[in-house]
Amino acid sequence: MRQENSSFRESVRRIVEHQYFQPFVIGLILFNGLIIITETYITGNQFLITLDKIIVWIFVLELVLKIIGLGSRTYFSDKWNIFDFSIVVGSLVFYATPFVSVMRLIRVLRLIRMIPAIPALRKIIDSLLKSVPALMGILGLSILIFSIYAIIGTTFFSDVLPAEFFGSFHSSLFTLLQVVTFESWASQVARPIMHEVPWAWVYFVSFIIIGALVILNLVVAVILSYLGQDDDNVREEQMNQLFRENQELKKDIQEIKQILLEKK
Amino acid sequence: MRQENSSFRESVRRIVEHQYFQPFVIGLILFNGLIIITETYITGNQFLITLDKIIVWIFVLELVLKIIGLGSRTYFSDKWNIFDFSIVVGSLVFYATPFVSVMRLIRVLRLIRMIPAIPALRKIIDSLLKSVPALMGILGLSILIFSIYAIIGTTFFSDVLPAEFFGSFHSSLFTLLQVVTFESWASQVARPIMHEVPWAWVYFVSFIIIGALVILNLVVAVILSYLGQDDDNVREEQMNQLFRENQELKKDIQEIKQILLEKK
Amino acid sequence: MRQENSSFRESVRRIVEHQYFQPFVIGLILFNGLIIITETYITGNQFLITLDKIIVWIFVLELVLKIIGLGSRTYFSDKWNIFDFSIVVGSLVFYATPFVSVMRLIRVLRLIRMIPAIPALRKIIDSLLKSVPALMGILGLSILIFSIYAIIGTTFFSDVLPAEFFGSFHSSLFTLLQVVTFESWASQVARPIMHEVPWAWVYFVSFIIIGALVILNLVVAVILSYLGQDDDNVREEQMNQLFRENQELKKDIQEIKQILLEKK
Amino acid sequence: MRQENSSFRESVRRIVEHQYFQPFVIGLILFNGLIIITETYITGNQFLITLDKIIVWIFVLELVLKIIGLGSRTYFSDKWNIFDFSIVVGSLVFYATPFVSVMRLIRVLRLIRMIPAIPALRKIIDSLLKSVPALMGILGLSILIFSIYAIIGTTFFSDVLPAEFFGSFHSSLFTLLQVVTFESWASQVARPIMHEVPWAWVYFVSFIIIGALVILNLVVAVILSYLGQDDDNVREEQMNQLFRENQELKKDIQEIKQILLEKK
Repeated sequence: MRQENSSFRESVRRIVEHQYFQPFVIGLILFNGLIIITETYITGNQFLITLDKIIVWIFVLELVLKIIGLGSRTYFSDKWNIFDFSIVVGSLVFYATPFVSVMRLIRVLRLIRMIPAIPALRKIIDSLLKSVPALMGILGLSILIFSIYAIIGTTFFSDVLPAEFFGSFHSSLFTLLQVVTFESWASQVARPIMHEVPWAWVYFVSFIIIGALVILNLVVAVILSYLGQDDDNVREEQMNQLFRENQELKKDIQEIKQILLEKK
Repeated sequence: MRQENSSFRESVRRIVEHQYFQPFVIGLILFNGLIIITETYITGNQFLITLDKIIVWIFVLELVLKIIGLGSRTYFSDKWNIFDFSIVVGSLVFYATPFVSVMRLIRVLRLIRMIPAIPALRKIIDSLLKSVPALMGILGLSILIFSIYAIIGTTFFSDVLPAEFFGSFHSSLFTLLQVVTFESWASQVARPIMHEVPWAWVYFVSFIIIGALVILNLVVAVILSYLGQDDDNVREEQMNQLFRENQELKKDIQEIKQILLEKK
Repeated sequence: MRQENSSFRESVRRIVEHQYFQPFVIGLILFNGLIIITETYITGNQFLITLDKIIVWIFVLELVLKIIGLGSRTYFSDKWNIFDFSIVVGSLVFYATPFVSVMRLIRVLRLIRMIPAIPALRKIIDSLLKSVPALMGILGLSILIFSIYAIIGTTFFSDVLPAEFFGSFHSSLFTLLQVVTFESWASQVARPIMHEVPWAWVYFVSFIIIGALVILNLVVAVILSYLGQDDDNVREEQMNQLFRENQELKKDIQEIKQILLEKK
Repeated sequence: MRQENSSFRESVRRIVEHQYFQPFVIGLILFNGLIIITETYITGNQFLITLDKIIVWIFVLELVLKIIGLGSRTYFSDKWNIFDFSIVVGSLVFYATPFVSVMRLIRVLRLIRMIPAIPALRKIIDSLLKSVPALMGILGLSILIFSIYAIIGTTFFSDVLPAEFFGSFHSSLFTLLQVVTFESWASQVARPIMHEVPWAWVYFVSFIIIGALVILNLVVAVILSYLGQDDDNVREEQMNQLFRENQELKKDIQEIKQILLEKK
């Protein structure tokens, strides 16, 4: 009984680790994407809906095969597998939801399976996540600056028309995001407000300059975090090797000197 | 009497340096921020105003404790503490001001206490300030270019409608900031003026190109100032160590040669 | 007969490799550009059309000379020559096409011959192509993110006026390109939609942030790929040389020690 | 007679090289800037015009002193002095011009004297000029791409309203500059044209992507040219020193080996 089980597992593993298994899955996700895009043009096509359902079940089958083949412990030890698993299970659970919008969202999110499926994409996200700790400080600072400016904006400009810009704290935040991306910040936001509140230029100019500085620092922090990840480690290693070799040379020379001095 | 004073100071220092003291202060600033944001939605709520007053007095108490615990000399030797002190004292002084707008501004500025309170934020501002000297030249150049273009703009386009763009030197400066951020520079500013002053394209195209070049140089200067701060010092140090070690090796080998030659 | 052929080839080669041959070709392409630009001002001028035809035949003659002079095998072994050849042959084939627009396009594309003609331009394109493999991952990720957001946008906002923004999958893609370049993303796209679908801010803000992050990573990837191409190879080489020299030193010192120990 | 001349020159040189001479000139240029800015507010004020005239003559005096003090050969050997000289002479020549606009321009350009007067600004312009050769290729490529797209745009969209965008080759160039700075490229330029010429999206999307790539390469080229100027030279020098020292070590060790082998 045990042996049979094991040989079954072995053959499943052989399927899962077959060289065409992963490309087949990627192809299926791509095909699923095409179906979803086609459905935005022809809504309510029964054939496409059926195809989509079949693909979900193939995805479920794929997951079951992988879990059996790799063993549940090995499978769930990789955080990308857990991510993959949640998406497929979510797809299954919410497929029959009465909330149509939730269902539609979940269907689209299935395309994110592309990231765990392709190593190159996985690597980008991994290195992006690795650079997050280096960015925490600058992100915190951005939130602080946005909050302070949003409060000031709401306090002083909430009565200035049009109210959609600084009418409340949350609309101020959205307006400040618009300003920091330089989108119509003068023509649509700053100039009409400066017509009624002349000193408003201090508010906008200081925010533009501080915002640009913070974003510049964000960019530099990202560049430095990447440069540090690759380059410095290699050089560090090389330098250490140089120092180690120098130490050995020194030891040898010291020994030679010792021998010569003894002979003397 | 003296000893009693000293033991009192010691126990205050123990409070100030307790591991939960700083997180408590940060939590309080965050909570204060939430109150101020809430007040933008419900103005004139008596309970929130009272809470805010209590927090100011807790802040004052915190400062007094820190000054007693660390000693006024140690406390004021750190420029971040002086900054912190001025904000809290400012809060206190302007709380009862009849100018409502000044009072509101001061209340919001209290949130900046977040920067001295969190080391990561302090570090960002410190390294930003450190890169300022390297940027002085490029900032001076920017001011010069802005001034020259603003004068030319005011001289030649002040009669062109709409007058809000180049009507006076200060509105020209604002318009040039709009142009350099690429915000509606063609659709709103340049095209209407070019309708009346055909050669105006020279003015705008040259400013766009020079402005972009200057900003590019600003970015590069910031990147280089950061790269220089971290990287070069370490490499310099490593290289110096290599040279020092090589010197020692040389000396040893020279000595060996000396011994051998003497024996000969 | 053979010898005659060879001496003819030799003299053709001498023409092709003459120091004024390439500058003459570049001058001719420039002149051709001027003619095409002039024709946008005065259409249907018979003299300019004739000049253009003559230049095409000079280009053909140039190609024939080059192929004879360098030998067809040497000529076609360079991918830039193949590129050059296709443009000239295309010019010739489509010159008499009844589709006027195709003919006009082909005429303009002849100016791209500037790139294979000038080494500095060729080098830029070459190094741009070399950095493409390093960008494949981030480009794939961009396409994935654009597709997912375009599907979500089409699904939820296709009924919101104006329909030109998210009316279909392909117009959503175009709108997202507009949003990611920060062009009127708030004033023209996001705000009108948020009036009818209040939660739309989640969609736009998340896309702006993710889009900015991806573009930032693209920039960093390009910078790193360039830095890697030049710098690292040189340093790698230098470091290897240092290690090799250290190995030799070590061997020598070991031999000295051996000799001394033997004598002992 | 000769000696008298020489001692006069010596005393002039002492004035020119006095530590307060250059700050006085900078102060005067700043003061001149203030006068010109004031005149944009109050035009035709006789007092300000007189002041301006006096300053021009002080500038002339300054130049004369410098040329006498340093000697005309030393003075004109520095390209910044020649630049300075041309501005002041230009100021003088065009002061009495009947063309008011030329006169006004020249007056403003006098403020550019700030650059030769302050070493930090001079250094920025110098290093900017040094990076120009590295950018020639990418600038040439930009001009080529702009020309090709401008010709295509003029050919196909010149009949599409509004004619101001692609009506002629030069307005197409201006529109493309607007597009490449992402300014209203979709809302104002691309969408109205796409309404009449549906395939126009290929034109705009390809130009946006190619334009962004070229600009990205420009940025990278500038960063690399700066990095190369400072960093690489220092490292090159250090590496060469390491190699030289290693060579000496090797020679010494070889000699030791020789001695030992001879003794054997």
